[in-house]
Amino acid sequence: MKILILNGPNLNLQGRRQPDIYGKETFEDYLQRLRTLFSEHEIEYYQSNVEGELINAMHRAMGHVDGLVVNAGGYSHTSVALHDALLAVGLPAVEVHLSNIYAREAYRHQTLLTSACRGLVCGLGMKGYELAVRALVES
Amino acid sequence: MKILILNGPNLNLQGRRQPDIYGKETFEDYLQRLRTLFSEHEIEYYQSNVEGELINAMHRAMGHVDGLVVNAGGYSHTSVALHDALLAVGLPAVEVHLSNIYAREAYRHQTLLTSACRGLVCGLGMKGYELAVRALVES
Amino acid sequence: MKILILNGPNLNLQGRRQPDIYGKETFEDYLQRLRTLFSEHEIEYYQSNVEGELINAMHRAMGHVDGLVVNAGGYSHTSVALHDALLAVGLPAVEVHLSNIYAREAYRHQTLLTSACRGLVCGLGMKGYELAVRALVES
Amino acid sequence: MKILILNGPNLNLQGRRQPDIYGKETFEDYLQRLRTLFSEHEIEYYQSNVEGELINAMHRAMGHVDGLVVNAGGYSHTSVALHDALLAVGLPAVEVHLSNIYAREAYRHQTLLTSACRGLVCGLGMKGYELAVRALVES
Amino acid sequence: MKILILNGPNLNLQGRRQPDIYGKETFEDYLQRLRTLFSEHEIEYYQSNVEGELINAMHRAMGHVDGLVVNAGGYSHTSVALHDALLAVGLPAVEVHLSNIYAREAYRHQTLLTSACRGLVCGLGMKGYELAVRALVES
Amino acid sequence: MKILILNGPNLNLQGRRQPDIYGKETFEDYLQRLRTLFSEHEIEYYQSNVEGELINAMHRAMGHVDGLVVNAGGYSHTSVALHDALLAVGLPAVEVHLSNIYAREAYRHQTLLTSACRGLVCGLGMKGYELAVRALVES
Amino acid sequence: MKILILNGPNLNLQGRRQPDIYGKETFEDYLQRLRTLFSEHEIEYYQSNVEGELINAMHRAMGHVDGLVVNAGGYSHTSVALHDALLAVGLPAVEVHLSNIYAREAYRHQTLLTSACRGLVCGLGMKGYELAVRALVES
Amino acid sequence: MKILILNGPNLNLQGRRQPDIYGKETFEDYLQRLRTLFSEHEIEYYQSNVEGELINAMHRAMGHVDGLVVNAGGYSHTSVALHDALLAVGLPAVEVHLSNIYAREAYRHQTLLTSACRGLVCGLGMKGYELAVRALVES
Amino acid sequence: MKILILNGPNLNLQGRRQPDIYGKETFEDYLQRLRTLFSEHEIEYYQSNVEGELINAMHRAMGHVDGLVVNAGGYSHTSVALHDALLAVGLPAVEVHLSNIYAREAYRHQTLLTSACRGLVCGLGMKGYELAVRALVES
Amino acid sequence: MKILILNGPNLNLQGRRQPDIYGKETFEDYLQRLRTLFSEHEIEYYQSNVEGELINAMHRAMGHVDGLVVNAGGYSHTSVALHDALLAVGLPAVEVHLSNIYAREAYRHQTLLTSACRGLVCGLGMKGYELAVRALVES
Amino acid sequence: MKILILNGPNLNLQGRRQPDIYGKETFEDYLQRLRTLFSEHEIEYYQSNVEGELINAMHRAMGHVDGLVVNAGGYSHTSVALHDALLAVGLPAVEVHLSNIYAREAYRHQTLLTSACRGLVCGLGMKGYELAVRALVES
Amino acid sequence: MKILILNGPNLNLQGRRQPDIYGKETFEDYLQRLRTLFSEHEIEYYQSNVEGELINAMHRAMGHVDGLVVNAGGYSHTSVALHDALLAVGLPAVEVHLSNIYAREAYRHQTLLTSACRGLVCGLGMKGYELAVRALVES
Repeated sequence: MKILILNGPNLNLQGRRQPDIYGKETFEDYLQRLRTLFSEHEIEYYQSNVEGELINAMHRAMGHVDGLVVNAGGYSHTSVALHDALLAVGLPAVEVHLSNIYAREAYRHQTLLTSACRGLVCGLGMKGYELAVRALVES
Repeated sequence: MKILILNGPNLNLQGRRQPDIYGKETFEDYLQRLRTLFSEHEIEYYQSNVEGELINAMHRAMGHVDGLVVNAGGYSHTSVALHDALLAVGLPAVEVHLSNIYAREAYRHQTLLTSACRGLVCGLGMKGYELAVRALVES
Repeated sequence: MKILILNGPNLNLQGRRQPDIYGKETFEDYLQRLRTLFSEHEIEYYQSNVEGELINAMHRAMGHVDGLVVNAGGYSHTSVALHDALLAVGLPAVEVHLSNIYAREAYRHQTLLTSACRGLVCGLGMKGYELAVRALVES
Repeated sequence: MKILILNGPNLNLQGRRQPDIYGKETFEDYLQRLRTLFSEHEIEYYQSNVEGELINAMHRAMGHVDGLVVNAGGYSHTSVALHDALLAVGLPAVEVHLSNIYAREAYRHQTLLTSACRGLVCGLGMKGYELAVRALVES
Repeated sequence: MKILILNGPNLNLQGRRQPDIYGKETFEDYLQRLRTLFSEHEIEYYQSNVEGELINAMHRAMGHVDGLVVNAGGYSHTSVALHDALLAVGLPAVEVHLSNIYAREAYRHQTLLTSACRGLVCGLGMKGYELAVRALVES
Repeated sequence: MKILILNGPNLNLQGRRQPDIYGKETFEDYLQRLRTLFSEHEIEYYQSNVEGELINAMHRAMGHVDGLVVNAGGYSHTSVALHDALLAVGLPAVEVHLSNIYAREAYRHQTLLTSACRGLVCGLGMKGYELAVRALVES
Repeated sequence: MKILILNGPNLNLQGRRQPDIYGKETFEDYLQRLRTLFSEHEIEYYQSNVEGELINAMHRAMGHVDGLVVNAGGYSHTSVALHDALLAVGLPAVEVHLSNIYAREAYRHQTLLTSACRGLVCGLGMKGYELAVRALVES
Repeated sequence: MKILILNGPNLNLQGRRQPDIYGKETFEDYLQRLRTLFSEHEIEYYQSNVEGELINAMHRAMGHVDGLVVNAGGYSHTSVALHDALLAVGLPAVEVHLSNIYAREAYRHQTLLTSACRGLVCGLGMKGYELAVRALVES
Repeated sequence: MKILILNGPNLNLQGRRQPDIYGKETFEDYLQRLRTLFSEHEIEYYQSNVEGELINAMHRAMGHVDGLVVNAGGYSHTSVALHDALLAVGLPAVEVHLSNIYAREAYRHQTLLTSACRGLVCGLGMKGYELAVRALVES
Repeated sequence: MKILILNGPNLNLQGRRQPDIYGKETFEDYLQRLRTLFSEHEIEYYQSNVEGELINAMHRAMGHVDGLVVNAGGYSHTSVALHDALLAVGLPAVEVHLSNIYAREAYRHQTLLTSACRGLVCGLGMKGYELAVRALVES
Repeated sequence: MKILILNGPNLNLQGRRQPDIYGKETFEDYLQRLRTLFSEHEIEYYQSNVEGELINAMHRAMGHVDGLVVNAGGYSHTSVALHDALLAVGLPAVEVHLSNIYAREAYRHQTLLTSACRGLVCGLGMKGYELAVRALVES
Repeated sequence: MKILILNGPNLNLQGRRQPDIYGKETFEDYLQRLRTLFSEHEIEYYQSNVEGELINAMHRAMGHVDGLVVNAGGYSHTSVALHDALLAVGLPAVEVHLSNIYAREAYRHQTLLTSACRGLVCGLGMKGYELAVRALVES
């Protein structure tokens, strides 16, 4: 299977920003390990801080990818457009958040994306991406 | 008169996404028919999935266009920036939605754009663009 | 096709009340023009200030009319009964409002009727009736 | 490691209730497979429909267990007492829901337990238990 | 010190849009005056209508700039992503709004950015940028 | 005893509107059966789509009737005036709804009439009228 | 001056309904006394339980009456249509309520009519009509 | 038919608690009369103050009972778990409340159970159980 | 009878502040006229901008005054303490507001004082004090 | 006098859970001291994590006990059933919370039990039980 | 220890206002008894109806007093300034209310002061002051 | 120019209260520095903990002062009376808060004063007063 991991705003700073919260590993390093773990599958990766570019990336994935792992960062809580893009491309998707969004500010408790995904994994750090990929490739 | 139709996120997939809901005609084909119908007017068209690019397009329209037909898709429900852009450019505008947003999820019932437009046409499918253009060129 | 236009409370004063907002043309004069424009169709008209009479008119239309254009005025924002009547008669309907209800008081932003109609045209003045009729007879 | 899986109300009917939604496998059968998968770990299991018995089970786990996987079913959305019990026992915990609670009724969108857990896995069916166990034993 | 002024959507039209509200001076002209006033400091300037480009600009500022003055326009009221970017880059920041956002529509009363900034200056027109720069370079 | 059954808007279409939801029996036919069932009591019936006519009917019932069975349809959810009329006439009343209003749209979950009635029977179809009459004549 | 007093639903029962709350005097008797008190003015009176008939009465008053005293009873709390009618006829109006609506149920605390009237007199019983008439004829 | 009546918290005190509100008859005495009235049917009865025991009782009823009459007392207003249990067992159910919950505190106006039942009977005292049984056995 | 008129914050500026809204007559001049009008009664007057001084004045009035006319200005919308003072002194009171508080900002629509008064007169300017005094001395 | 102290969920862990917040003394040790302090009175004690068992304990107390001291822990914020049980048994009761519930999460600020008790003591640690007992036995 | 009791608005009327609710004992008489009870401690007392004077009194207490007992009456529900004063002076404080504020109007259920105090005693009448003093001097 | 700085409740403790938050400089010392900085202008200063005295001070400033700098502390969030006083005196005003009110409790996020001021400076400590004075004297 071919899985596309989509990371949203500020996730390009992973490993550099607030390392006590998010850890010191960059996403690129983690991705390395992830690809090794799922060597029988193909894992593509795209990151953008631009909401519309994330939508573009979802559109491009139509017909070329078997599933999406989406961490849209701060856009997750407000973006009807990303919700609609997920419905439009119709691919199975699992939402991921590094931190436990329910243990943070109230405006992070709601995500508009989850209802357009198959499910959600949150609060489990980088491990969450692995679990999301498993959910897609093993079931 | 010169009218600019602005389409927002996911409308580039028109005809391909959820055809049972949105129909099978692409927007480009429809545009063809629309231009024929209003042959005495000039109809420009721009689509982007990037909120800021839609704002840029509105800015570029200042002084060159006589009216706007805007379907900002999912951004309609949350974008103060697009609302402000409409006020800033000061062009007469009519908002369009393909589907009946009041028969869908609660977060689609409110649009921040309408109050900066002359009016709204929603729920009438592709036909809504024609009606919006009429509202601008015939009154 | 046979279309029934239903006007609700205070629309009988059209042309006399707040002419700077609503214009000076009476609805009867406008109707004249509308019938000329759609000479191949039959346009019936009924106005009442009584909510229940509007419901009665909808009921009478069952089986005799092909579509409804409804401007229920102030009842639009509160009437579950009119919503239910629209569902009960099962006719295609388009809601119209003369003014842009989203640029007015908050209690006008919500209309209970739209979700029982095919769509909504608002903020486009008398022109809105023409557009609504078009939506019914041309699609 | 020793992991306790705690299932709340109605999960004893798994495999018998609404099989089109929840599948036909009973939890006991699934548990079998799970124990095989994590043969190097010990997986305990407790189910009760009584909120207080779930609290009792958490209390008993103090000092004997290394982590909790909790699916408190309908109690998740209203139980401050279970939230407090999780804090009181101080064990790392991961919350699981079979269905995508954000694609269901509004009163299911909020869970009081997540903020007292390390994280949440939802919408991924029985697979969610495996992912939650992984999150505990592999990180 | 090196200060970056970040302007968001529609502020490129400053001096051209609604001059009775926002004045006739363009931001570029004002910037000229500002640089003269703070000749001992370096003032960089970036404007974009694209939310993600504002985030990119913040990221680029890490390690090269000593403070931020941010007027994110309409994005201020809804953008969790910009809030997170401010936290991620960890630079002292002061938010500016030209108009008095508390004397306008209710949806402008809340800004998601302020809580990630040191403080806020609003309603004082172009002068607000000077005051914000002072707050950064003089304390 | 003499009981007045009051039916509100759209209930005159019973048997004709949405028969898959409301059944095919007209209210008149059902009334026949009801009168047979309670042959030792007198059952009057009045229906109107006009809110004020329902109030008038309640007023006329003062002194001539021993109890009311009220299904005010869509008015139930918004009518303070009907609530006040029930208090004014001071007759024991039971509210009836054919459908289960708590399994429908949120705006149907609240009824302003119940608090002015002795009780409520809902979701039990036409049978509800019989149960309401029983509640009045047998206790 | 010519003043029209408009009474809404259930006020025809004044003197008969809940006399411990509303007193034993009928409105007709009170009106007698009121006309004597203001013998130099003409006081017309209309009562209806039908919302739309109250609107009709307001419309008829245009051009023939110098001021309105309006007690729309239960409709006051929900009727956008009556609010619009007051604006449409443009006559100076004073709203009256017999009881202190702020000492009753929460849904009576808001009246949609007051903002379309010059002012409000409430909680002062029948005396309120006299005070409202004074406000119109003496200022 | 076999009907199970399920009573929730505090209903074991019926006849002893607040007799001016709830009457002096114990539920056991009433049950006697009910069984006589429906002598051709079998009426089982279970009461518990423990939410989870009510769920257990519902589960045990699967396959052995033809319908449920449920008065879950105070749990009705907050229990998602009981709602889910009703859906899980899939039996036709009618909810009963002795008192008129809409004439009491606001937090009693909402019941989470009704939407999982066929209907609701409330405010009609002990008689409500009889009516609920009738709804199940006679339709 | 002896009536105390209590004026709250900013009413000492009456005649000087915003004369286009509140008129040019000072309260002292108006009081003169009022005393002439009610020459058979004694009218005391007290004004303070200090909430607690208004409470003190109410307390002093116990046993010496027969009624209160209270315009607590901005405190009316937030002061539980003034509400309690009115209950504590137990004097009949009528609340007055010069402007129509229901045609202004939402936070002025609610007054905490009215429910502790006999009634309210608002929107009728200085005339309101006369009407309030009448309500106290003539009924 | 005979006083029953009722402790709800997680209070059995007192002295063991989060000792920095709740202290190291177990409730049993504290009870010892309390009984010594009130040696002329009888103090019974019951703890359960099961909501329904707390209700059962209240019921058993009817006729055998003179007052209740209730700390229902997390159930305090959501349990209508415990509120009803307090009303049903009709004993004077004082609610106790160890911590200051108003300095914690918003969902702890409301307790449904207090309105069915004589009063509340909170935030004063174990001392609160002594104060509650005093309130019952000394007044 | 030296304790300052601070009483807010209307508490100077204690014993005179609504004696059926608050009792006939004046606070001065009660204070006498309280000082006897705590003869080894010094109890100061201050009452004012002026919010700012209560703040002044708190400020004066800094450095001279060991604890505060505060009953700010109606100000408790709205005063951020008193909350801040409590934080500013940093003295241990216990809030007292004579009546059960949770059994009264909704706007009394919230107190802004409690979160700045150690705890709260309410609903226990004058006894509450004794309990609050105990909480300060005995723990 | 003559500027009046108005400080509200608890600001007299500046330098003594919570010095880690608010700093150790007293306002009087800071004022000294401020007067030196703006030696060509006259800066008056008034502080009170009494809301009404702040209103009195604003009134006294009419005609004698050219601008106001207002930090009303805790009253800022609730005082309609201070809002009205600002409008009544009609002087240009700038609101100041020492701390970042948007990074604190939710009830501090709203200030009723800002909409009656020209603008707001918050979160910038004592420096904020200087910036506010600049806004008044330099523009």
